[in-house]
Formats: sequence, C-alpha cells, structure tokens
Amino acid sequence: MPADSSASQSPAFRTMPVDASPVGASAFDTSAVAASAAALPGLIPDLDWVTDTSRVARLSQDFAWFSPVLKRQLADKSADIAVRPRTEDELRRVVAACAAANVPITIRGSGTGNYGQAIPLHGGVVLDMSGYNGFCWARNGVGRAQAGIRLAQFDEYARKSGLELRWLPSTFRSATLGGLFGGGFGGAGSITYGPLAAPGNVLGIKVMTVEAEPRILELRGADAMLLHHAYGTNGIVLEVEVALAPVQSWMECVAVFDGFDEAVDFAAAVASGPGMIKKEICLLAAPIPSYMTALADHLPDGCHAVLLVLAESSEPGMLGLLDAFGGRITYRKSAEDVIESRKTLIEFTWNHTTLHAMKIDKSLTYIQSAFDPTRYVQQIKDIHRELDGEVLMHLEFLRTKEGAINCSGLQLIRFSTEERLQELMQMHRDRGVHINNPHVYVVEDGKQGKPNPAVLAKKADFDPQGLLNPGKLRAWEQRATLLAEGAI
Amino acid sequence: MPADSSASQSPAFRTMPVDASPVGASAFDTSAVAASAAALPGLIPDLDWVTDTSRVARLSQDFAWFSPVLKRQLADKSADIAVRPRTEDELRRVVAACAAANVPITIRGSGTGNYGQAIPLHGGVVLDMSGYNGFCWARNGVGRAQAGIRLAQFDEYARKSGLELRWLPSTFRSATLGGLFGGGFGGAGSITYGPLAAPGNVLGIKVMTVEAEPRILELRGADAMLLHHAYGTNGIVLEVEVALAPVQSWMECVAVFDGFDEAVDFAAAVASGPGMIKKEICLLAAPIPSYMTALADHLPDGCHAVLLVLAESSEPGMLGLLDAFGGRITYRKSAEDVIESRKTLIEFTWNHTTLHAMKIDKSLTYIQSAFDPTRYVQQIKDIHRELDGEVLMHLEFLRTKEGAINCSGLQLIRFSTEERLQELMQMHRDRGVHINNPHVYVVEDGKQGKPNPAVLAKKADFDPQGLLNPGKLRAWEQRATLLAEGAI
Repeated sequence: MPADSSASQSPAFRTMPVDASPVGASAFDTSAVAASAAALPGLIPDLDWVTDTSRVARLSQDFAWFSPVLKRQLADKSADIAVRPRTEDELRRVVAACAAANVPITIRGSGTGNYGQAIPLHGGVVLDMSGYNGFCWARNGVGRAQAGIRLAQFDEYARKSGLELRWLPSTFRSATLGGLFGGGFGGAGSITYGPLAAPGNVLGIKVMTVEAEPRILELRGADAMLLHHAYGTNGIVLEVEVALAPVQSWMECVAVFDGFDEAVDFAAAVASGPGMIKKEICLLAAPIPSYMTALADHLPDGCHAVLLVLAESSEPGMLGLLDAFGGRITYRKSAEDVIESRKTLIEFTWNHTTLHAMKIDKSLTYIQSAFDPTRYVQQIKDIHRELDGEVLMHLEFLRTKEGAINCSGLQLIRFSTEERLQELMQMHRDRGVHINNPHVYVVEDGKQGKPNPAVLAKKADFDPQGLLNPGKLRAWEQRATLLAEGAI
Repeated sequence: MPADSSASQSPAFRTMPVDASPVGASAFDTSAVAASAAALPGLIPDLDWVTDTSRVARLSQDFAWFSPVLKRQLADKSADIAVRPRTEDELRRVVAACAAANVPITIRGSGTGNYGQAIPLHGGVVLDMSGYNGFCWARNGVGRAQAGIRLAQFDEYARKSGLELRWLPSTFRSATLGGLFGGGFGGAGSITYGPLAAPGNVLGIKVMTVEAEPRILELRGADAMLLHHAYGTNGIVLEVEVALAPVQSWMECVAVFDGFDEAVDFAAAVASGPGMIKKEICLLAAPIPSYMTALADHLPDGCHAVLLVLAESSEPGMLGLLDAFGGRITYRKSAEDVIESRKTLIEFTWNHTTLHAMKIDKSLTYIQSAFDPTRYVQQIKDIHRELDGEVLMHLEFLRTKEGAINCSGLQLIRFSTEERLQELMQMHRDRGVHINNPHVYVVEDGKQGKPNPAVLAKKADFDPQGLLNPGKLRAWEQRATLLAEGAI
C-alpha cells in the first residue's frame, strides 16, 4: 500500500539531525524531573494545575489494567504533576516551560486507551487535553475539532450539519478525538470505513512542537498519519480534521444462534453484503453474552449473539439472511428509540465487551488478533473449536485499511499465567493469525510492528529533546544503535 | 449465498402445475397473433396504441445492435402493435385482452438494454411502460415508484428527501426503473452498493399476472428477486421499491497514466480503500480515451484514463494515492459544477463507453467479463499484455453481490468474425475469467447461467399461458424435457 511504502521509503530520517549521545528515557533523573515539575505552577500560575498526589496518580493511568502484564508493569507509574490547558496559549506556555526545564510530557485524552499510552514512565507532566475541546467546523463531508473534544460531543455538533463521525469506539462518550487519533483504531463504523489509518479518513492535523519556542504546523494526509497511533510520542496534536459520513437512521438489534458456525456465517454475510449499510457487527460467542448483564433479558443461556447497528433500510436484507442462517432476533430498537433512550449496543462492543466481562469475572483478560482476510471465517471456526473454553471468541467485523472484509478478534482469555498468555498468542500466530499484542506499551511492539524511520523523523523534528512520553518509542531510545545497524 | 441457495432449494417448482403439452414459442401462429393483436385497439379503444409499422418496429428494438451476433439474429424482429398504458387499469385491460386472445406481450422500458430483452421474437404487443411512471414515495432510506419512471426522474424526486438512487446506469437519463430491474445490473454506485441483486438493495415489487383476470401481488426480498434480470418473462413488474443512499456531494475527475499497470493499480486502490466514498471508477485503456471525443481536451494521446466520481471529502485521499501511482488529473469538476453543467462523466462509462467507441469505429463490439476477485488485478494485467490491440480494456470497478471488490470488464473487441469473437471469450474463460456473454438473448445464456426452478415456478404462476416475452426463458420452452431429465 502506498501509505506504507511511502513511509518506508521516506528520506526524511536521513536528513534529521542526529545527536551522537542518546537522549531519552535514560537521560531523565527522577528527582530532578520531580523538582522541575513541582516548580512549573510557580512559573505559570494562572493554569489549571493538579498537584494532589492521588488525583495526579489517577490522571496517570488508563485502561492498561485490562492486561495483567501491563497492570504489573505500569501500576506504580505516575506523573509528578498534571495540567489542563484550555487555550493554545496555555498549551504553548506549558510546553515551552517543560522544554526549558527538560520535563517529560505525557499527553492524555480521557484515559480510555488500553496500551498504557497515557501512563508516564518517567514522571513529569501529564498534559490533560480534555479542556482543549472546541469544535471548529463541519461542512461538505469534513469536520474539524480540537484534540480534547469528546467524540460524543463532536458527533452531536456534526449532526447539526447532517454529518456524523465515521467511527465510534465503544468509549465514545468519554474518549477524545485526539486520543482516538493518538492511540485508537476505529470502532463502530470501521465495518464501512475501515480504520482511521485508511487513506481518506483523516485529512489533516495541527501540531505543536516541544521546544523552548514551540512551533505550530499543519500536516496533511499521509504526513499527518505519521503521528497516528504513536501514543503522543512525536508531536502534540492540537486539532484533527476528519472525513465524516452522512447521518443515517441507525437501528440496533441482537440476533442469537444456537450454533457458533452459523452465527459467524451470518455475521460475515451481513458484513460483506454491499446492499446493507451498517455501522457495527459484533459477535459474542457463548458464554460471553452471559457477562452482558444489562442485556440479560435478550440473551438466552448458551446463545451466540450478534450485535448489529444497521441503517433502518437495511433491516429487511439482514432479516432475509438471518432466516437463511437460522438465527432469531431477541432485541430490536428503532433508530428513534435508540436516540430517545440514549442507550446503544455500541457500549457492549469492542473493549466495552472486555470491560463488562472483567466486571463479572476478574480472571479474564483478552488478546487482539487480525485474521487472514482470505480465510478468516475458517480460521475463526478452527480456533474456536480448538481453544473454546480458554479462548472465548469475541469478533468485531471490519474492513481493513486496504478494504478487505475481516474481523478483529478481541478474544477473552481465561488468564492463568503470563507464559500461557504468550503461548496462546503464539498458537494464533502459528495458525496464520496476526496478533496485535495488547500486553505491551511500546509503540513498535503494537501494531506498528517495527521502527518506522518516518515516524522517528517526526519526533526528531517536533520533539528534539525527546520529552514526549519517553520510553514508548523504541526507535528513539535506540536510534544510535538502529542507525549503526542500518535498521532505520 | 443464501439468496441463491434458497432459490435452488425452493420447493415452489415441484408444486407448480405442469402442463404435459409444451406451451410456448412453438405454440404461436404468426398470422393468428398478428390478427389478434390488430384487433386489440378495437376492443380497448381509449388506450394509447401505436400501429404505425415503423414506430412499432422502433419500439421493438433495443441496444442489442452493440452485438453483431444479436444484430444479425434480431434485426427483423418486431411486434405487431405497441401500447403505452398510463394507469393500472389500462394495464389490466391490455393484459386481460392479450390473455384472452393468446397474444404475446413483450415489456419495454425505454429500450436501453443490450441483450434484446425488449425485442419480441414472436410478434404480439410491445407493452411500453414509459407512461406508467409515477413516483410513489421516498422516506427513511427507501423509495418506491412505478416501473416506467426514468431513473433520472426518480433520483430528482428522491433528492427532495435527501436521498438518491444507489445505482445510476450510464443510461440513467432515459432508462426506467423497471428496465433496470428487468434486465440491468447496477452501474455507477455498484462500487459501493454492489449490483441490484445484492441482498438489501431491492426490497419489494408489485407484480401483475398475465391471465384473463390479472392478479396483483406484492413480492418482498428474495422472492421479488426471482423476477430480476428475467427480461420480463415471468411477471409484469408494476412498481419497484429500492433501498436508497443518503445524498452526497459528488465531484468528478479524470486521472491519466502513461502505464496501464499503474492505472489499474491506482483504480484498484481507490476501489478497495474504505476511507474513500465513491460512486464510479472506470478505467479506459489506450486507445479507448481517443473515442471519447467530447473529452478530447482532457485525454492526451495514448493515455490510460481513470474516470472517477467521488464524494468531495474523499478527493484528498484519492490524490494521495494518485501521487503514489504516478498519475495526474486532467479534468476536475466540483459537485456544484457537475450539477450546474448537467453533464456527468457517468455518461462515458459502462455501456456508454461502448456507444461512444462504436460511433467512431463501427468495427468494434464488446464482451462482458467477471474476473476472479482473489486475483483480478493480475488477470487484467495478463490479459491486457496478451490481447492488447484486439481486446481493448474497459473496466468498471464494483463490489460483487457477495461484497468482494472486483471489475466488470466491458472490453471493446475489434470484430472480425463471430468465430473469433467466441474464441476470444473462450480465451478469457481459459484464464479463469467468467464471461457474461452479451451476444445471447436467452435468460439462461446470460448471467443466470442455467435454468432456475424458482424463476420458472414464478412464470408458471404468473404467466401460465407463456405469453410474456416468449422464446427468452429456455426453462419454460423446454420445461417438459428438463423435468424428465431431472434438470429442474
């Protein structure tokens, strides 16, 4: 794909200034950082600072605790102080002060991420972006807002122009636009529009650099995407401009099946059928439905459930398939009912599934897998047959960045040991299933997969002191070695 | 797919009344039919009859002349009379009179079809549906109209409710909704919504039976689709109800490339990319662009051209890919310009490409091919390399009924002999490319492929005398033999 190939062919890294001595995590002296951070409110007293230790600790955590591995590794990590800027000028002054005092900055949206991206490894300041939340505009299929806006709020504004967000992660009520861009994938809507990373979805971003005199830049298209899913390590994203979708009337329903294979076949047929407009298709294999207590009346014992959000006009087409695959509807809400009730099935999908399940059974954790689009249905059936009981199948149907219909598996795992967890992930890899490991916090260990010179070049340009979320971008920490080895 | 499997499993045929003596084409006596037809205006004088021989002959033809084979086979075929009913009552009276007098009825929309479906093989009446053209309603993502409405007119009405047709064949200005349902595939829009045949696209139809006392029925979903692409052989479609799409701002542009392979790769990337909302992607290999004289200023000599209709918000994403594949834009119109100019690139795509080319070079004809979605890009490049010069590559990107990204090849052919034409089609088949042969006029020889018992059962129920478009549905003509052989 062009986006990837252009990234790997980018000459940007070769022209970046390279400091011979490594600057990064190892360069931070914990107590020096703490002292400098503590001095910040005195330097810029009119900002919304948080110094109370327990509040700072809370603002230093996200949903990484879904992973027993990350929970162990990150539980005691905390910033020294947090700040909630409300204007670009406030942001600029905080950043300039941090750059001058060499204080690490970890950007936080609302902390709904799962990979520890909002958790500072080396203290310093948590930059809580939730106060920087203005809606800029929505017109002609495009919308733009400040990074700290909640997605639900963005969607509400966009609807006034007949538009809506292309994706709603299950956390849309609290999650921010900047957080979605910095560490998210997509969510409900990805079955139609793919992930944020697909060309055409994100049109541009406004970025602030971390320097004594911060610069402000506008990046467009593929260039902007070099800051996507980089956990806020290579620039402070101020605004995000995204392509939107026309508003539609979304009805919601639950289809249940006695057989797992039939549920998968039905969900795959709805997912791939081009005549049905859809926003969400989520499959919960038994016994996962039993963890969704708020839906208990609609989820018979032992059922496999498919949660659907469809355009109302697509309901008849879906029902035709349902009949063919032997399922039945146990829950149905018209678009009007959904809006009126202010409840949505979306809050039972994606990592809300994980959340609801872990509330009921604390021994659970999860993995994330990307099946092979050319044989995903068979892979799913095989793995389900083989590992059911220890691996509980939770599937989110989606289109890949390249447009193929596929699933993201967010399988629930009955956790025993970290070794067994690794083994289960390896068993997936051995069967041709790619694992996007949610038990790691380093950018390159997640879906980026390996050092990306273009991502690193952005950090070198926008954060030359390496203050942003230090310890998360391995290429930066190891750039001297990687360069010497020709790996970047 | 369920639609297909349910069709082939349908028990309907087994319960249909089967007449031991074949009734059909062979049963029509040319002069008896002519006499009965001539008597019709006397029986129902208040209708809009056409008796002038040259006008009747014109109303007995469609665009089958694109095929030298069909031109030879069908050139002299004509109805005895034509009629243009304006109300259901007028329709009912014509049909009842034809049933009473055993007069064949061939249904006509506006005659833009290419397979001779509007050409009567056994005289009788042409039922010109263009006067039965009322718009019923559009609401909540669905619209319904009488069969004779022109698609452009339907679209205009639907737009008042913020909706639009999911497909526009290139003939949308004159083509009718009933004609599209009876003999069409889809068109512009199929790159997003697939063909009409995909579940969810067509929600229902109203049908009149051909009997002395015609019945009127409503068929829904898969049941309605048994009359789709059956050339009006198994029921008279009065109204069609289709799922619609939200209106979007469609910009149009032409991208040109020096290399064919790059043009294909670019078009395929836009086609599959889920972040770009599109309505049309058409690739014209050199020298086809030179036949599009109205666009001559925008089509440099020897170029390979990709014609695009995209949501305006998707232009930046497309331009990013264009850059990666080394193309350039030579023509661009904003959505506003397109609407104001009342011109659209859609009228250079699908079989309008064929039309424009044949206007310039009368030796041309065309074929229709369906590539293998798992390797269509490679198949196209291979065939282009091998047969270029004699086979000129014209590709329409689309999603299949099952949702896979693919192309319909409407390759232009430098025609020499019918034998060579068959040979070229066979060469495609030998390379794993399915041919939807446009040089045949029998339903089963086209994309239906083989007798479908459920389609036949509808004819037995709705047209027990076999008066509708006789000679086109082979299963009906040969039903006694097929039954005896167990083929149906």
